[in-house]
Amino acid sequence: MNALDKLKKKNEEGKFICVGLDTDINKIPTHLLKCENPILEFNKAIIESCSDFAAAFKFNFAFYERERFKLFETLIRSLEFIPENMLIIADAKRGDIGNTSEMYAKAILEDLQFDSITVNPYMGEDSISPFLRNQDKLIFILALTSNSGAIDFEKTKLENGRFLFQHVIEKINSWNQKKNCGIVFGATNSYELKENVEIFRDLPVLLPGIGAQGGSLTDVISTFIKANRKDYIINVSRSLIYKSNGKDYSEESKKEIISLNNLIEKLYNKENNG
Amino acid sequence: MNALDKLKKKNEEGKFICVGLDTDINKIPTHLLKCENPILEFNKAIIESCSDFAAAFKFNFAFYERERFKLFETLIRSLEFIPENMLIIADAKRGDIGNTSEMYAKAILEDLQFDSITVNPYMGEDSISPFLRNQDKLIFILALTSNSGAIDFEKTKLENGRFLFQHVIEKINSWNQKKNCGIVFGATNSYELKENVEIFRDLPVLLPGIGAQGGSLTDVISTFIKANRKDYIINVSRSLIYKSNGKDYSEESKKEIISLNNLIEKLYNKENNG
Repeated sequence: MNALDKLKKKNEEGKFICVGLDTDINKIPTHLLKCENPILEFNKAIIESCSDFAAAFKFNFAFYERERFKLFETLIRSLEFIPENMLIIADAKRGDIGNTSEMYAKAILEDLQFDSITVNPYMGEDSISPFLRNQDKLIFILALTSNSGAIDFEKTKLENGRFLFQHVIEKINSWNQKKNCGIVFGATNSYELKENVEIFRDLPVLLPGIGAQGGSLTDVISTFIKANRKDYIINVSRSLIYKSNGKDYSEESKKEIISLNNLIEKLYNKENNG
Repeated sequence: MNALDKLKKKNEEGKFICVGLDTDINKIPTHLLKCENPILEFNKAIIESCSDFAAAFKFNFAFYERERFKLFETLIRSLEFIPENMLIIADAKRGDIGNTSEMYAKAILEDLQFDSITVNPYMGEDSISPFLRNQDKLIFILALTSNSGAIDFEKTKLENGRFLFQHVIEKINSWNQKKNCGIVFGATNSYELKENVEIFRDLPVLLPGIGAQGGSLTDVISTFIKANRKDYIINVSRSLIYKSNGKDYSEESKKEIISLNNLIEKLYNKENNG
């Protein structure tokens, strides 16, 4: 199944939450520290408890680069616990000149077989195109991010009156020949999301910023319901995976994702009945 | 010695060439393939033959991510051959929300002890600030890159009539409290370099794009001589490290960097006498 089909199938099942594995040795329950590989142990438990309820899993690469020699070992071994037909995203924010982006694409989409990767558009088309060669992958390109720094450049106004992030989205639309482009749109920008949802109608959306960063799940869901769209996932990392610091951590994460799914279901039902 | 002092000392010695170790298993001399670790063998020979003539060494991280388990091993073992007081740059183009950039900064500037890293400004100030905490490091932030895609966003005109890359440079100036910011400016943009050299007077410059990408060494050097500046390095990768495909490869790379240094010396002498 290609990446977009995986995403759409989960959405049809009412699953919209992407579990972000930003696994930090300093934040996982301390009883795990006596395990041979605490991060792997943590990932395994979270994956196994949340798989039935998740739309996708996202690995934040920064958190695996700190492991030195064990970096890819833990990453690859974590991947083994994820069920088939689950969308797996490499949150790596890569992007460089053509021959270098090609190496990143090979490393992450071919060697590691990720379905999907996040990339940074700053350097323009030839820095993105090597990621777009395989139509079965899904490439989430940064548009408007969830952090405060989004105001510095992404929300800068251009000569034609548009914001930079809108210009980026328009370019992405023109690069989407193989229907394998998506965008990253921060859930903290609920006004901009509502105002722009039509200009990226053909681009699946990855929305970070719910939870620790303060974005509103209800706002996001309402916007997509009103736009009559089901091709998006909402990433939740810290507020889900670190829900408990005790031995019940994976149980508590499971309860949290179920509770998020229930809230989403209610919003959809309300809209259908209202 | 901090990163900026390393750079300035090399510049004072007439060394401006940064050797880019974009080491690709498919491009190194074939006789190396029988070595236990061909990439390490190649890096060792290039580092040893070029160290006396180089201003810096730059590791393109994309080329080391393809190695799976041996990734950091080859990278770390390569670093051991670089003499003390040489500026070592991680060309990683990282940048993410604050807590994630912090992990990248720890992995690359602390664990791996790189002097310097390239970062992507798209996500704004809080995505860059974790890299700027240590005043002894030198953070090269992308301004105007050497690739054709620079036209898509970096050269987009803003409402105030400035180009995005100029706005980025102005922001970097305001972030440069600890004097540890630099910029990446593509040598292929010789007109823009000449026109803008004054707006980044306090920012050391890393210039890629000479050689395989077609930028002119003479144009770059002339611009900096005219601006009376010595705080820049010119990256050369493919056209230097793959100069020969035979057993003489490191000898030929050495000849090439010496010839580039001689050309630079001539340009400086001509200016001083002319």
